[in-house]
Amino acid sequence: MSGLDPAVADRLRRNADGLVCAVAQQRGTGEVLMVAWMDDEALHRTLTTRRATYWSRSRQEYWVKGATSGHTQHVHEVRLDCDGDTLLLVVDQVGAACHTGDRTCFDADVLLPAQD
Amino acid sequence: MSGLDPAVADRLRRNADGLVCAVAQQRGTGEVLMVAWMDDEALHRTLTTRRATYWSRSRQEYWVKGATSGHTQHVHEVRLDCDGDTLLLVVDQVGAACHTGDRTCFDADVLLPAQD
Repeated sequence: MSGLDPAVADRLRRNADGLVCAVAQQRGTGEVLMVAWMDDEALHRTLTTRRATYWSRSRQEYWVKGATSGHTQHVHEVRLDCDGDTLLLVVDQVGAACHTGDRTCFDADVLLPAQD
Repeated sequence: MSGLDPAVADRLRRNADGLVCAVAQQRGTGEVLMVAWMDDEALHRTLTTRRATYWSRSRQEYWVKGATSGHTQHVHEVRLDCDGDTLLLVVDQVGAACHTGDRTCFDADVLLPAQD
């Protein structure tokens, strides 16, 4: 049982694993930093602590972003999308968002280059 | 069988339904417009036509964004994330990205208001 506000929980449309998608965006610059997943409890912790907390699908545990690396995300704002299955977190990212050391998880692999 | 470049297909890490997540972001402003899903063929069509094409999970069909509404997405740039399961599309969105008529799918439901 999660501590998440039932009025919020009622609006979530979770996938088969009980998760919603979460997009983290840097405040101000608008950079899309990373995409991860949350269950109700991860969202509850994120909303109440303003420290981005995800559900790690690979480790099957809660994951406070930056708890190990120091690359924390202070959560400025959280929005839910129109069909309830995706969150947008506006954050202040400390250091690199990506485990590779890149600023964002989208820095390294360009499939289609920008047009002029 | 998709026409997607095998060198790209090899880097995708699809979910159980064969899909990767796709975040659409407005070029210039950085607004996160929406999140949807692509299979290999949807990505192939997106890369080759520069018109954002998704896989509709509800309708189980390809969905050229704006084909009905006129609210198309011209794709400026496509990036794959570090673990291969999420795409970032930098687009020029015509009109509203959200089916509700809102500019983005994240406009209506604020779970945690912005701090000053």
